[in-house]
Amino acid sequence: MTSDSQSGTASAASHVSTSPSYSITLRVEAPSGHRTASDIVAAVSAAGAAITGVDVSESGADRLVVDITADTVDSAHVERIRDSLGALDGITVRHVSDATFLMHLGGKLEVNPKVPLRHRADLARAYTPGVARVCLAIAERPEDARRLTIKRNTVAVVTDGTAVLGLGDIGPAAALPVMEGKAALFKQFAGVDAWPVCLDTKDTEEIIRIVKAIAPVYGGINLEDISAPRCFEIERRLRDELDIPVFHDDQHGTAIVVLAALTNALRVVDKAIGDVRIVVSGVGAAGSAIIRLLQGQGARNIVAFDRKGAVHADNAGEDETRRWIASTTNPDGFAGSLREGLAGADVFVGVSGPNILTGDDVATMADDAIVFALANPTPEVDPIAAAQHATVVATGRSDYPNQINNVLAFPGLFRGLLDAGASEITDEMLRVAAVAIADAVEPRELSASYIVPSVFDAAVSPNVARAVAEVAERNRAHRERGTSSGTPSDSPSGSSSGPARSHG
Amino acid sequence: MTSDSQSGTASAASHVSTSPSYSITLRVEAPSGHRTASDIVAAVSAAGAAITGVDVSESGADRLVVDITADTVDSAHVERIRDSLGALDGITVRHVSDATFLMHLGGKLEVNPKVPLRHRADLARAYTPGVARVCLAIAERPEDARRLTIKRNTVAVVTDGTAVLGLGDIGPAAALPVMEGKAALFKQFAGVDAWPVCLDTKDTEEIIRIVKAIAPVYGGINLEDISAPRCFEIERRLRDELDIPVFHDDQHGTAIVVLAALTNALRVVDKAIGDVRIVVSGVGAAGSAIIRLLQGQGARNIVAFDRKGAVHADNAGEDETRRWIASTTNPDGFAGSLREGLAGADVFVGVSGPNILTGDDVATMADDAIVFALANPTPEVDPIAAAQHATVVATGRSDYPNQINNVLAFPGLFRGLLDAGASEITDEMLRVAAVAIADAVEPRELSASYIVPSVFDAAVSPNVARAVAEVAERNRAHRERGTSSGTPSDSPSGSSSGPARSHG
Repeated sequence: MTSDSQSGTASAASHVSTSPSYSITLRVEAPSGHRTASDIVAAVSAAGAAITGVDVSESGADRLVVDITADTVDSAHVERIRDSLGALDGITVRHVSDATFLMHLGGKLEVNPKVPLRHRADLARAYTPGVARVCLAIAERPEDARRLTIKRNTVAVVTDGTAVLGLGDIGPAAALPVMEGKAALFKQFAGVDAWPVCLDTKDTEEIIRIVKAIAPVYGGINLEDISAPRCFEIERRLRDELDIPVFHDDQHGTAIVVLAALTNALRVVDKAIGDVRIVVSGVGAAGSAIIRLLQGQGARNIVAFDRKGAVHADNAGEDETRRWIASTTNPDGFAGSLREGLAGADVFVGVSGPNILTGDDVATMADDAIVFALANPTPEVDPIAAAQHATVVATGRSDYPNQINNVLAFPGLFRGLLDAGASEITDEMLRVAAVAIADAVEPRELSASYIVPSVFDAAVSPNVARAVAEVAERNRAHRERGTSSGTPSDSPSGSSSGPARSHG
Repeated sequence: MTSDSQSGTASAASHVSTSPSYSITLRVEAPSGHRTASDIVAAVSAAGAAITGVDVSESGADRLVVDITADTVDSAHVERIRDSLGALDGITVRHVSDATFLMHLGGKLEVNPKVPLRHRADLARAYTPGVARVCLAIAERPEDARRLTIKRNTVAVVTDGTAVLGLGDIGPAAALPVMEGKAALFKQFAGVDAWPVCLDTKDTEEIIRIVKAIAPVYGGINLEDISAPRCFEIERRLRDELDIPVFHDDQHGTAIVVLAALTNALRVVDKAIGDVRIVVSGVGAAGSAIIRLLQGQGARNIVAFDRKGAVHADNAGEDETRRWIASTTNPDGFAGSLREGLAGADVFVGVSGPNILTGDDVATMADDAIVFALANPTPEVDPIAAAQHATVVATGRSDYPNQINNVLAFPGLFRGLLDAGASEITDEMLRVAAVAIADAVEPRELSASYIVPSVFDAAVSPNVARAVAEVAERNRAHRERGTSSGTPSDSPSGSSSGPARSHG
């Protein structure tokens, strides 16, 4: 939990810390004896595991069977624990079970009827012959599909498995556990029915065609873990060609939570977004969306860096995204390295790779510096080291304060879109979503260690949903009055595929 | 229910009978008075509605508000009921609600997490960072997808909305209520998680590509309501190109329940399938699959008819399905009309259109004739008239005894396929499914009015599942021993797209 830890506690952010994501249960058989169980516990503990439970499952005259549940670091650590138990006299490790794998057995989602099917009258209404009248009603008034089918509350979580977490191109089948988890979060945090669509193709045009073809069932599309630059084209085209909202979480979800976190971090250090110099490391999907959203909220001095240094007019090359970044950032034409560019900066936002900066680099930033090191699982700079010099530090990790987590954004955003029956997503919706997340941290709670609400804060998702739905309904009212709100330039896809104002 | 009605009761099969699929609630406002409610009830009843509930929702000194719930015939009937109430002095119909539409509001399915997401440790296992280990396990061992994802228990219900119920090409959005209902039945009757895939394309190749691309999430594909002849090619190709079972319910589901019903009907009249002459009316998706499955079970004398008459070698034309039918049926080369062909036949199976035969036609059949008039909603022959001359009569309707309903087959069939991790469906599986359905009617229960079990008979689906899984596991064992079970010719697709032995 972000709210009950402090940024100074070193072990929490250490890369060798134990994690509930690697919780095991060791079934250990041992000779009976009054010290046996405590010897086992001592050995597991000495091997570095964080024991969370000890259960004696069998106790006989000669033998004892003990289940030890403990958080561990990784598979090598589990082996070390086994070895240290094996070194004890007469002790056998019968079995090691892994809570994460157990949780995934059989998958994490189920599809349930919302209507009773207990007797023939139910069947005659929910299915034939009664359903035929409902079908005909939709055939005659297609807009009734939202009222009479699951479309009203259902989102597709679409991936091709090419950029899954930090794992890269692992394919659609191996991506499914992530998409199932995402769908579970959609339901848990916002009551949205989400369904995994894992596509066995990497062809941009084919993915576009497929998503368009499956769209009748859905009220929104959440693109997920599709590698750049294909994700830009896929998102832009689907936004143009579909009449339901299309969202790329890796871009816009990240941008929303970064803007939310930055809004509160700036409140903590009492600086204004229009005045600060912001360094963004990483110009991929997330970086370009973050730049665009921060600019929409008033940021004027952003310098973006890739592996080779600052992006500026002379080195932007032919890539559309880079050219757009060069044209809209780096007002002073800075041309050095990330390290050089960091000197005197107020804000660092990293969406790039592990360990590219040190605490000493952070020390060169302006007073009351803000550092968001979001590379996962290993941040751009060790957050403990960064916190020696920066006032506010945030990461993407759950074991450090200020976790910048997309879970804060996407459930409520889609809740609002579905509630409003929205047909598109605008930049304004992303901005109000960010403000709603930021405002979930009350002034009395706000501190350098608490700039984003907990993902378990029940107020976040409804607040985001309400803010987004209000914008969607205002836009619709404007459209129905024939005025032009929600113009093409006010669309997040502009940020993703190049010059913001050039398409759509 | 099929078990508690008798084939002689005329009103049950009348086309103007009221139905729970058209149940309405009339909210009626009336002056207070001791006879008011009974006057209203009398008027609604006199108008032909079957009243199922009377609730006084407001009762004041002057006014009374009564909710009358009743089964009706159709929308014209509802108007007549309104009119007859309006003719009563001082009575106003405030509102009419329709139970079928109310049941569909917001759709009939929901997606739920099967795992708890209550605190951070849950999140760390079900989602990041723990999920990454599960993803990697599947990337390394693709066969683990069935163990660690929803694939193990999930079926896609795929349609393009071109042949929905008797409604024809109403499009993918209007087809969704049927697919949702089907998915609900999958869960209700067999615990299968099924998901609607309604495709906004009619292009055969595109449908094939899309189903292949979405397949990683699914353990089976149920094709539904896709018009012929595209459904044949789509099924055949997907069976060839996918490693999960592909089933076309309109063909093989219907064939299974027809074989089940015929098995028991022949027991009732004490005839053997190899001895009877069978007339099949309709050579579309269902007809060809029925012919093939009955032949597989031993039928030797089948004559198939389309609108122009008997199909035989000289009029089969170029259509692959018709040519296959001509080559394998009609051993005597009969060339007349359906009416002529019916004379002396033992069995009539209609999967064609409404009212093409009369009771007099049925009277020309052999003694102890069997008539399955399955056209929906209006059978090939009025079942009441048919029952004057045939011993066993069945329809596809729920308001007549012996409803031949695919719900008896598809849930248990897929339950068995998923339980066995089957990669294909064979004709043998279809046959054992039919036998399992037939055997769910015990000898002491079997009668001319009860040849198929009720769809609510809880034993049917597990029995079908067990029988199918046994075949699948035996086939797999044969394959693993290197012998050739489940050869291409033992595949139901053979029946659908032409000469049975020529492809695969």
